[in-house]
Amino acid sequence: MSSETTFILGGARSGKSRFAEQSVVKSGLKPVYIATGRAFDDSMVDRIHHHRDRRGDEWTTVEEPLALVDALRQSSFPGSMILVDCLTLWITNLMMAEADVIKECAGLIEFLGGTQVPVVLVSNETGQGVIPDNAMAREFTDLAGSVHQEVAAACDHVYLVTAGIPQKLK
Amino acid sequence: MSSETTFILGGARSGKSRFAEQSVVKSGLKPVYIATGRAFDDSMVDRIHHHRDRRGDEWTTVEEPLALVDALRQSSFPGSMILVDCLTLWITNLMMAEADVIKECAGLIEFLGGTQVPVVLVSNETGQGVIPDNAMAREFTDLAGSVHQEVAAACDHVYLVTAGIPQKLK
Amino acid sequence: MSSETTFILGGARSGKSRFAEQSVVKSGLKPVYIATGRAFDDSMVDRIHHHRDRRGDEWTTVEEPLALVDALRQSSFPGSMILVDCLTLWITNLMMAEADVIKECAGLIEFLGGTQVPVVLVSNETGQGVIPDNAMAREFTDLAGSVHQEVAAACDHVYLVTAGIPQKLK
Repeated sequence: MSSETTFILGGARSGKSRFAEQSVVKSGLKPVYIATGRAFDDSMVDRIHHHRDRRGDEWTTVEEPLALVDALRQSSFPGSMILVDCLTLWITNLMMAEADVIKECAGLIEFLGGTQVPVVLVSNETGQGVIPDNAMAREFTDLAGSVHQEVAAACDHVYLVTAGIPQKLK
Repeated sequence: MSSETTFILGGARSGKSRFAEQSVVKSGLKPVYIATGRAFDDSMVDRIHHHRDRRGDEWTTVEEPLALVDALRQSSFPGSMILVDCLTLWITNLMMAEADVIKECAGLIEFLGGTQVPVVLVSNETGQGVIPDNAMAREFTDLAGSVHQEVAAACDHVYLVTAGIPQKLK
Repeated sequence: MSSETTFILGGARSGKSRFAEQSVVKSGLKPVYIATGRAFDDSMVDRIHHHRDRRGDEWTTVEEPLALVDALRQSSFPGSMILVDCLTLWITNLMMAEADVIKECAGLIEFLGGTQVPVVLVSNETGQGVIPDNAMAREFTDLAGSVHQEVAAACDHVYLVTAGIPQKLK
């Protein structure tokens, strides 16, 4: 039997990462943080440090911008619980690397179906604004929407966080 | 007595069309699809074909970018159920044609109040991102928001779809 | 004991202001409207007049683009109920004036914790679209998201309005 999976969506600065971290800490399991973000500018470095300080020392941090399923497999030791933050940056990184996002997503879905440790995945809701007028942003919005649907269908629990408040969608 | 009306809102690639199609198919009634989208580029052609393949042969498809209420009246035969996909493109087309969106919306609301066949209307939630800095996109956001309020008030049921999961708002 | 506080979030033209006004009117208390918006162009003037006409004569209107907490204190007479519309414009005005948004927000939170009159605050949800590609819009999105989290945590009730329909988040 596979372990529980949770998908947490929210807008920019909605409190989704904090809610996700609290869900993992509450479990009492050994927390593993898989960071998909790359520190490509100063504001990103600041944000990564801010998140790391908030989490504290008991977390194991793994940085993996692309090979997410490999990172998940390698972090799946008994007694652990994994937080992936976030799918939005993973999709962006895959697009930048000209990887096949749909195929990578299928691998993630397969992993989630059989995981032996609980996993929480965080992502940005980015599809509720005006359709962007540049082609890359539109392609991103379409891919992100598709991945979100697949991941939400595969997970046991789905939350949408607005202004720090989680709503349970599933 | 008029028949049931349903309004389904969702972000880009949120699964709103699929949820709408399933609602119509489940009814067992003869499904009519009113497409407001114009195939103005290849990606749009692909998407229209993708949607049509998913729906299958039992659907009657009507393409009408502007005269939506006329198309609704002409498709309202006994035993049918109509899906309109989507209001966002209809509003865009009306704006492009310099038509009076508010007046056209009033006609739609009047139709919905007296329809003899069940109708499902789909639209994009586009108002929850940063206010766009070009005037046309702002005007669109304002008009779409106004139309959504009117249609939601007029319909018996309203759903918001996020990551493929419908929430019942009304 | 402090009085009840309510935070109402919604997208552009989602019906959030109307829902907020109705909440205040229903109370039977003397309604005070604190407008943070500046009439910097004709469309803004029109919108302000439209809102004012809808509210009617029994409302006291206070215009304050920056010193929101001062305006709240001065409007807090016994028997009144205050509507602040909206935090989005307040944050924008503070950013334009190069004020410290986080510090101003802390002042607002302190006020809300001890207010002797009921207060309703309205704001735009702007964080659920694609991350904007200009730095100022990104900074705004981040600040607005942080303020929304703080205000939602401080308020007794939180609503999200979509297509005119309020959902109670808290």
